[in-house]
Amino acid sequence: MPARPLNRMSELRRDPILRRWVIMAPERGADTLARRGEPPADAGEARGPCPFCPGSESLNPDEIAVVRDGTGWAVRVTPDKKPLLHIEGDLGRRAAGMFDLMNAIGAHELVTDVPAHTLTWADFPLPQMTRLLELYRARTRDLRRDTRFRFVVVLKNHGATWSRYGHSHSHVVATPFPPKRLEEEVAGAREYYRMRERCVFCDQISEELRAGERVVARNADFLTFAPFASEHPYEMWIAPLEHAADFGTLADGAAASLAELLVDALARLRTALADPPYSVALHAGAVDGGAQAEFHWHWEIVPHLGHELGMEWATGIFSNPVPPEEAARRLRARR
Amino acid sequence: MPARPLNRMSELRRDPILRRWVIMAPERGADTLARRGEPPADAGEARGPCPFCPGSESLNPDEIAVVRDGTGWAVRVTPDKKPLLHIEGDLGRRAAGMFDLMNAIGAHELVTDVPAHTLTWADFPLPQMTRLLELYRARTRDLRRDTRFRFVVVLKNHGATWSRYGHSHSHVVATPFPPKRLEEEVAGAREYYRMRERCVFCDQISEELRAGERVVARNADFLTFAPFASEHPYEMWIAPLEHAADFGTLADGAAASLAELLVDALARLRTALADPPYSVALHAGAVDGGAQAEFHWHWEIVPHLGHELGMEWATGIFSNPVPPEEAARRLRARR
Repeated sequence: MPARPLNRMSELRRDPILRRWVIMAPERGADTLARRGEPPADAGEARGPCPFCPGSESLNPDEIAVVRDGTGWAVRVTPDKKPLLHIEGDLGRRAAGMFDLMNAIGAHELVTDVPAHTLTWADFPLPQMTRLLELYRARTRDLRRDTRFRFVVVLKNHGATWSRYGHSHSHVVATPFPPKRLEEEVAGAREYYRMRERCVFCDQISEELRAGERVVARNADFLTFAPFASEHPYEMWIAPLEHAADFGTLADGAAASLAELLVDALARLRTALADPPYSVALHAGAVDGGAQAEFHWHWEIVPHLGHELGMEWATGIFSNPVPPEEAARRLRARR
Repeated sequence: MPARPLNRMSELRRDPILRRWVIMAPERGADTLARRGEPPADAGEARGPCPFCPGSESLNPDEIAVVRDGTGWAVRVTPDKKPLLHIEGDLGRRAAGMFDLMNAIGAHELVTDVPAHTLTWADFPLPQMTRLLELYRARTRDLRRDTRFRFVVVLKNHGATWSRYGHSHSHVVATPFPPKRLEEEVAGAREYYRMRERCVFCDQISEELRAGERVVARNADFLTFAPFASEHPYEMWIAPLEHAADFGTLADGAAASLAELLVDALARLRTALADPPYSVALHAGAVDGGAQAEFHWHWEIVPHLGHELGMEWATGIFSNPVPPEEAARRLRARR
């Protein structure tokens, strides 16, 4: 008896206990699931010309946005070819027995960060990083006009097993639901605000500046620090000293200033930990403009080091062998 | 100028935004942090005799509990030599500026699951798995008498880069705080109960039995299923059909019945995915007996497959390329 055909369409399913939306994305390919520690099937350099390099634009012809630089492009945004979420359609919220479902609607954009094939974020000239940050700001402003979307997140992965073709690229994702981590941060910030009528991030920034020992770097507009309760060794956050929930309001001058600290932080990480793989993410407030007083946008940077994750997965208990004071000391020391 | 000496004592730090306790455990060794994908420094077989094997008891002489089998032991519990949490002392709750701290108090016990060096859980004779489950029940009952503790969790990791010496062992951890994941589950279950006065787990079990397509196996007392909104490919849960929040109340007959489904599930996973690394965890209610009507203990099983984790880390957005219906179909097919 043949198995009945499976639904190969992606959808969003809500866990009734954790109240978390999970993307079921069968078309992203169960068959490409690599075993832990092995590079994914699409990693490596051996699969023809790099589709991100200048000259290969016809492989990703649909430009969502592009930043020009003289005769060529400096940053390029195209639809992700295996999107987590799909831009076309309505949400189609519905029930299936006791469960909740909707269509896997959202934006998943692929950003080619730079024309040069081998340049990593830690190597970026400041004007290039500034252009890239301005591009994220522009995508945030554009995607928020779509009323289906609740949050816009930016994600950058660096390191061999993470990146296709080794050419620096990043993701802009707009979701029709609050991503769990963002929802938790917003909920925590709201609770703190309810108690004190102050932004918890502003208070934490003041505290870190006062204590000093977890500060990695600062300039006139931003602070890089290893958070007090860092979940991961060598975790860093970069946050504006002035309160702001909406990354879309970033001023032009501030973009250059943020670029300076972002490149600085990644260069420090590379030196301190011998070029580890890492992820960088922008956490910004809801695009509907809620929680403006409570939330505070920031970038989070986490190197992927091989310490034991079983306990974290099983229980949400994070154990960190590197106190942030020590991380900050090593990261301050050199870049 | 020499750096000032660092505090090498472990402590619990609470994140003021996420309201999550993080264990700062410098004595667990930042220097042993392996790079992603490389086995940790203490993995492998090449470091002398296995300390878990019969004959090596003097390497871990302090027995917390032991299950005898004729002249030898069948299961043995000793203190973990690099504990996440320490049993001696008081909680010492205190502030540091705006932050909250307490001592890293708790129990971290190492369970040698079986005398035989090469036997994995999927190979366990049912009497051995039954003894092990009864041992977890006994440790739950014993640890709850310590009023400092809020939750008792059990964690088992299987697979090359996870296990020291390759000899099957597991962890029993008692925490003075609600582990984040457990706290979320309890909060979700409480919210559901407040709305309907029914256990959300009981409802989900009924729904899975009715739908059928995500059921992997069942017997008279327990159900193994791939949850509707599985965060991870091939995730399985095993839950009692009868409501129970407290693993300490597991009846003797039910332990044998649970052993049957647990070994069955791991044997299916090994066949379906060619012996993947995996983690298994017991999620049970608070040891103070709260949320008895709302919470429902269960075991969660997750294979560690190498799909992209950046988005999950950055945002809490889980994307799963294997719908649980397909996972259940493959897991049902053979073992």
